[in-house]
Amino acid sequence: MKVLITGGAGFLGQRLARELLARGALKNPSGTPQTMTELVLLDVVAASAADLVGDSRVRTEVGDIAEASVLERVIDGETSVIFHLAAIVSGQAEADFELGMRINLDASRLLLETCRQRGHVPRVVFTSSVAVYGGALPEIVRDDTALHPQSSYGAQKAIAELLLNDYTRRGFVDGRVLRLPTISVRPGRPNAAASSFASGIVREPLNGEAAVCPVAGSTRLWLLSPRRAIGNLIAGLELDAAALGDQRTLNLPGISVSVDEMVAALREVAGDAVAQRIEWTPDARVERIVGSWPGRWDTSRAERLGLAGDASFADVIRGYIADEQVTAR
Amino acid sequence: MKVLITGGAGFLGQRLARELLARGALKNPSGTPQTMTELVLLDVVAASAADLVGDSRVRTEVGDIAEASVLERVIDGETSVIFHLAAIVSGQAEADFELGMRINLDASRLLLETCRQRGHVPRVVFTSSVAVYGGALPEIVRDDTALHPQSSYGAQKAIAELLLNDYTRRGFVDGRVLRLPTISVRPGRPNAAASSFASGIVREPLNGEAAVCPVAGSTRLWLLSPRRAIGNLIAGLELDAAALGDQRTLNLPGISVSVDEMVAALREVAGDAVAQRIEWTPDARVERIVGSWPGRWDTSRAERLGLAGDASFADVIRGYIADEQVTAR
Repeated sequence: MKVLITGGAGFLGQRLARELLARGALKNPSGTPQTMTELVLLDVVAASAADLVGDSRVRTEVGDIAEASVLERVIDGETSVIFHLAAIVSGQAEADFELGMRINLDASRLLLETCRQRGHVPRVVFTSSVAVYGGALPEIVRDDTALHPQSSYGAQKAIAELLLNDYTRRGFVDGRVLRLPTISVRPGRPNAAASSFASGIVREPLNGEAAVCPVAGSTRLWLLSPRRAIGNLIAGLELDAAALGDQRTLNLPGISVSVDEMVAALREVAGDAVAQRIEWTPDARVERIVGSWPGRWDTSRAERLGLAGDASFADVIRGYIADEQVTAR
Repeated sequence: MKVLITGGAGFLGQRLARELLARGALKNPSGTPQTMTELVLLDVVAASAADLVGDSRVRTEVGDIAEASVLERVIDGETSVIFHLAAIVSGQAEADFELGMRINLDASRLLLETCRQRGHVPRVVFTSSVAVYGGALPEIVRDDTALHPQSSYGAQKAIAELLLNDYTRRGFVDGRVLRLPTISVRPGRPNAAASSFASGIVREPLNGEAAVCPVAGSTRLWLLSPRRAIGNLIAGLELDAAALGDQRTLNLPGISVSVDEMVAALREVAGDAVAQRIEWTPDARVERIVGSWPGRWDTSRAERLGLAGDASFADVIRGYIADEQVTAR
């Protein structure tokens, strides 16, 4: 079984690669485990982690995913599993409209089109986002809540969802869209996502640094840890197509927490001195984008299918400390 | 004021052109009537009706709407109103996937992109469709019912809706999406739309011909007459942008009738002999597509904005007989 991860040099891509390599096999569409013989990591920069590039099953490819020749190079008739994670994040897609359209829409379509041309109906997992929602929302967002994205990123993700569902309905791919809650806590540095602070206000204080929180403490977020995200990506890929039926988009379980509750969890896990490193400086641009996302979801369909979120945000912080070997200062 | 109609040689395009020429003016965004100086009718074939081509304000253009050079020719900095009606109909988009994607998706996006490049923020009316709905639906479809299109046509229309909303939000165009009920009664001949029978079962019997009904009599349709459709396209264009806010998609009012009720109305207006010219031959392909569309809608938002449907299907038939000067045989 050949597996492709787009965005394979990114944070989630590399973690997913590690987990797939550790498992060594994935269920095939009949539910039987099948050995992974090749794992292609495609990104605009080369995946460089030693444990990944040192694995004989890994092939790193560098290229622009919006170029047909690049996708033709990494998707062949034996590529039976594709995790399409590559994306321009929300803040950047809002700042650079053309780039967002090119990667979030054109490249997603080109990926599906390449599969259609190959004709071998691979399983394809797309990651989507809370950002597809927006506007006047019910208190709890459900699978049948209409999408009114309030950002170009959200619109592009919603369009990719429609494409994947139609390509699946027509039998060109066996697709699954997983709407990810905001991932927290991400390691590394802040990025251009409007939700970057949702990791920064935990990560930076744990590293002894100040962090800016650009939204009010009452802002409610829908969060998922990297551990659970990776587990759900694989579980989503392995879901029985018949159980999914003709609705291939799933809202993933998460936990609903206010920023104040996140800070309280940080205080609980790491102490008051750490939590006090957060500086509150409202940013209207971030508040507008993040404030348009729903904070509570009904994810009972995903739960019935066996997908699960985290137990609590304090648990999420503890998982981050363990995974990233952080020594709280 | 320069006005463009794409699909300008089509049935709705020509009727809309006639109505615009008769009115001679449209409200500008401030609500003040402004004289229409030029009306461009773009289509893959030339609009040929003598009353249209004989009007000095009309310019007919023939071209492929998915070609950038064609759109650049018909949209200039003075094109302040665009009615984008050109589309590949549902049955044809299902049969020819690439053609549907090219016209219903790529051309719609190119039209928006041409407007963005021009930078003059024209008002743009897109026609969308019942076909954006599908899957498990509530008994009454509302503005906030999620879209799960069960045809490529519906998916392409839903994508175009998302694009128009995002281009509007970003200030590239002042867009309005009008989801049209199935238009009945269309004059002329059957077409490749899955809903073609919704006109045929009235039109052909009135012309003394047999008509095939491919769905069960209990099938419920959501219908709008051509007269009301044209009135709503113009009213939709003239709606105050502030009243629409950030939700530019409107479900247009229609009437909910079963096929049996349509036949009863035909019998009421034209007699039993006419109604008996309908032959019932189920077609699973048509039943699947049409059966996935909702038959009842809550259109209270559009009604509050002043848009209206027909009074009854018998009235619709009488309007068709009057407009098309049909002599029932």
